[in-house]
Amino acid sequence: MPNYRKVFSTPITLIIQPIIDLVAICAKKGIEHAILSPGSRCAPLTIAFARHPKIQVRTISDERSAAFIALGMAQQLEKPVVLVCTSGSAALNYYPAIAEAFFQQIPLLILTADRPPEWIDQWDGQTIYQQEVYGKHVKKSIQFPDEFSNPDQVWHASRIVNEAINLSTQFPAGPVHLNIPLREPFYPTSEEILTFPEEVTEFSPVASQVKLRSESLEQLHRQLSRVSRLLIVPGQQRPNPAIQSLLDELAQNQQVVVVADTISNLQAEHRITLHDHWLGHEPLGDQLAPDLVISFGKSLISKPLKQFLRKHKITHWHIQPNGQSKDTFQQLAQILPCSPDGFLAWLTQNLPPQSRDFAQRWASLERKVKLALPEILDQVPFGEYSALHLALTQIPASSKIHLANSMAVRYVNFLGRRTQEISCNRGTSGIDGSSSTAVGCTFTTQDPVTLITGDLAFFYDRNAFWHNYPMPNLRIILLNNHAGGIFRLIEGPSRQPELEEFFETKQALHAQSLAAEFGFGYQKAESKKELQAALDSFYHSSTHPKILEIFSESASNQQILQQVKTKLARQILED
Amino acid sequence: MPNYRKVFSTPITLIIQPIIDLVAICAKKGIEHAILSPGSRCAPLTIAFARHPKIQVRTISDERSAAFIALGMAQQLEKPVVLVCTSGSAALNYYPAIAEAFFQQIPLLILTADRPPEWIDQWDGQTIYQQEVYGKHVKKSIQFPDEFSNPDQVWHASRIVNEAINLSTQFPAGPVHLNIPLREPFYPTSEEILTFPEEVTEFSPVASQVKLRSESLEQLHRQLSRVSRLLIVPGQQRPNPAIQSLLDELAQNQQVVVVADTISNLQAEHRITLHDHWLGHEPLGDQLAPDLVISFGKSLISKPLKQFLRKHKITHWHIQPNGQSKDTFQQLAQILPCSPDGFLAWLTQNLPPQSRDFAQRWASLERKVKLALPEILDQVPFGEYSALHLALTQIPASSKIHLANSMAVRYVNFLGRRTQEISCNRGTSGIDGSSSTAVGCTFTTQDPVTLITGDLAFFYDRNAFWHNYPMPNLRIILLNNHAGGIFRLIEGPSRQPELEEFFETKQALHAQSLAAEFGFGYQKAESKKELQAALDSFYHSSTHPKILEIFSESASNQQILQQVKTKLARQILED
Repeated sequence: MPNYRKVFSTPITLIIQPIIDLVAICAKKGIEHAILSPGSRCAPLTIAFARHPKIQVRTISDERSAAFIALGMAQQLEKPVVLVCTSGSAALNYYPAIAEAFFQQIPLLILTADRPPEWIDQWDGQTIYQQEVYGKHVKKSIQFPDEFSNPDQVWHASRIVNEAINLSTQFPAGPVHLNIPLREPFYPTSEEILTFPEEVTEFSPVASQVKLRSESLEQLHRQLSRVSRLLIVPGQQRPNPAIQSLLDELAQNQQVVVVADTISNLQAEHRITLHDHWLGHEPLGDQLAPDLVISFGKSLISKPLKQFLRKHKITHWHIQPNGQSKDTFQQLAQILPCSPDGFLAWLTQNLPPQSRDFAQRWASLERKVKLALPEILDQVPFGEYSALHLALTQIPASSKIHLANSMAVRYVNFLGRRTQEISCNRGTSGIDGSSSTAVGCTFTTQDPVTLITGDLAFFYDRNAFWHNYPMPNLRIILLNNHAGGIFRLIEGPSRQPELEEFFETKQALHAQSLAAEFGFGYQKAESKKELQAALDSFYHSSTHPKILEIFSESASNQQILQQVKTKLARQILED
Repeated sequence: MPNYRKVFSTPITLIIQPIIDLVAICAKKGIEHAILSPGSRCAPLTIAFARHPKIQVRTISDERSAAFIALGMAQQLEKPVVLVCTSGSAALNYYPAIAEAFFQQIPLLILTADRPPEWIDQWDGQTIYQQEVYGKHVKKSIQFPDEFSNPDQVWHASRIVNEAINLSTQFPAGPVHLNIPLREPFYPTSEEILTFPEEVTEFSPVASQVKLRSESLEQLHRQLSRVSRLLIVPGQQRPNPAIQSLLDELAQNQQVVVVADTISNLQAEHRITLHDHWLGHEPLGDQLAPDLVISFGKSLISKPLKQFLRKHKITHWHIQPNGQSKDTFQQLAQILPCSPDGFLAWLTQNLPPQSRDFAQRWASLERKVKLALPEILDQVPFGEYSALHLALTQIPASSKIHLANSMAVRYVNFLGRRTQEISCNRGTSGIDGSSSTAVGCTFTTQDPVTLITGDLAFFYDRNAFWHNYPMPNLRIILLNNHAGGIFRLIEGPSRQPELEEFFETKQALHAQSLAAEFGFGYQKAESKKELQAALDSFYHSSTHPKILEIFSESASNQQILQQVKTKLARQILED
């Protein structure tokens, strides 16, 4: 363990060396990416990350976007991405993405440079109360030492860097905050050469697994004996082939009904994916009610599904490796602290025969909507709904799809089964960082990344594109109705005199000038024909991102949605 | 006191009525403006504010900008402006402006709609931990009741609205947070007519004043008897004629040296305003060191001034009505809990004769720089420095001037005495909301509002302009050097290989397409001649804001700054 006082003579090195070590530990523990934002207080961190040969750094000026970009990267990599910002309100601009990462369980290592403690709240520039600033939205917030004259302080520093990185990746993954007080001078002199130590302190937990005890399994087995109508509801998660094939077996062979929202990334044959279209229909309720619902993963999109399960007071078992309790359906009965795949594998062996009728009732509704919806969408006027239906058929299988809140993700959920990986910021369901998250994704893959977004979300987060890094694989499908169209689609606000100004929030921007500013390709579509023409070349390779802007009228989208609903209802309820 | 259970029969009114009352109390207590952001959870607040005849509401989609706009309004009005947002990360996007308001002591009433407590952290959409979410950066965070079946809950609601508004305006003014849980349904039916009550609960503190006790004044009088070289340093504040004339008397008649940064709004004849140019020069130090420094107001811009006072260990008295201690110069000796004007008035009567030599030494330096600087700026090549020098001469006396961090405010401070009101977000000194703050200012005045900003600050906060409200009086002088020029101007980063990518952060945008997007007038200047031509009509009245974009090179600005410094030093130090 180095004692800096002995090794180095100048005070500047006393500041820089622990930061060099921090970066070396990050690299040793497998961190490969850092997103920096410009600042002077954070200069030692900037310089150390920029000079590390194994860490790729990018700089993003708007910290709000920077943090969502880091989130978009960490989401794909399933490894922590480092964020570095200067002191003051910079750290606050990270906060929306940090809350999203917390609820979406994405690992981030947030390094905020700070003034040393003696200068807090003395009216010196760029100073706020940074310790614990992210409240309950980080797994932990740790203050880095500001002095290294005692070897214990050196040990302390490298220990907490290890702790922070370990914690960010342990289930549930999430953001961890290190607040790092730094005294001037921040910059090495030109003679000083930064050397990353060969040896650093490193410790990590070995892989472990939580399993249910055999007596618990026996008890669950007894309870399951009374269940012949089982519903499984996976929440938001990344694609998981192991779970996917277990669900295949349960759905196909054992007649379990699996209802999979688009963000579950577990849609497949023998899944229910079009449930939004019928779960609101009262007359169907009792036939569809299961004896038990088992859920796992994170949040759901489908409000009809949640309301259906709440209304019918369906007993609910929730699988979470750390035993967290989430009572989404108001009838939580068992918390199963184990891995979903482990439990599902056990279930395939221990489930009593299931009601074939029950499964067929769900399957028949899925089939009906699957047949009827495309026909109905062919008949209705051109608008967001039919445009997305068409566009989705032409997104390459290799593309990752990012959906913005709030209408984009709903439309895609209405449109049923997708095979591409779907991402959406459903941790906090904000519109604030959808574009940045997609941009982060482009930094991790050569595959196409398709962002489907609305005009409010898109212009809100336009600084996502304000940087100097190439994103040749980014494709943006922008649904521009010049408003927050969702407010016209839900019944309450559409009746208020305040609708247009205060709910929809009419806005005049279109993306053509944004595309020109950032050098993006741009095409627009106001009809099915234009859309098809644009899509023909949309995924041809290019050096720059491309925007396909689909114009429609908010009021007409509302009518179309209503028409589709009415026509579908007729078909669903007719037999 | 109304008991809603008795008065109203439907559950919907139980939700809406307390919100109606909240709005009525706001109006009764003199609140006239609310900035709303779109959302469904906050619909009762939106509807109630929009329908109140005495409150003007505006809707801004990007909550980060919305909050800085409210701050810009409240700063001018010196009265709380209401902010309303929906649940989830919307509230987090307010945070940068809230921290700024806290440290700049600007009253805001922040109303965040929330899910009711039973639905927090159950993976329902747009849910974060909103209680206390602003940590130490609000004066208080209060949870609004979520149930009104008991009359005490009705009393509780109206009491905390009163408390929150009172607290936001009591010294030091600042943001206060009410977190408001709301259950569905959020929207009144079309038959329901919202009626604001004639009578609401209202209580406010009567005006009070803190004065020093006579024994304290006697003690201070004794200590002052040894002071013949007094320096007064006002920190950031709004223009204050009473203090201005007391400082006139102290500076002119009593030879007190008053050093006034541009953000003090107390520059005038007989003030020192050009101190940045000489306080760094070692040889002058001892002649200029005072016996005592008295400060009041908030933060200072001048780093040389702070370093000078710290280095010479000057005894410091700080005036703050609430006795807050801020030891900006590391030598705080007395905290004076009273009003600055009260103490300064006493000082005019109790100050012993001051050293004429001391005052003249400062005055002579001021005179020298005042003469030399314009001549030097005439000789150096065209760049930000000379452009701002020219532009400042042509800003109307009636204009309010908003300065962005970080170079804009420094240049203006270098250029000495201004008569217009100067605003700058020096609470946290972020670049994140300068444009929005200026936009908020335009909503409060018919006078011109001039924003002087750099390219990073300007594009960072471009959503400031993303709304539908006219700002005919907004004029933007944009210094575009395609980078964070400050990093080239400070010595440390300019020597690093990371300078251009990681510190300056080269960026390619210019404002012409932004102007076209928002329908702003646009002119650019790359020479003195073009600048003069543009300025000739810049303040002519128009229906739209105007941008004057001044292009320069970051590297050449650095050289010019160095040249000016060298030439000035020669003249300052020559006798």
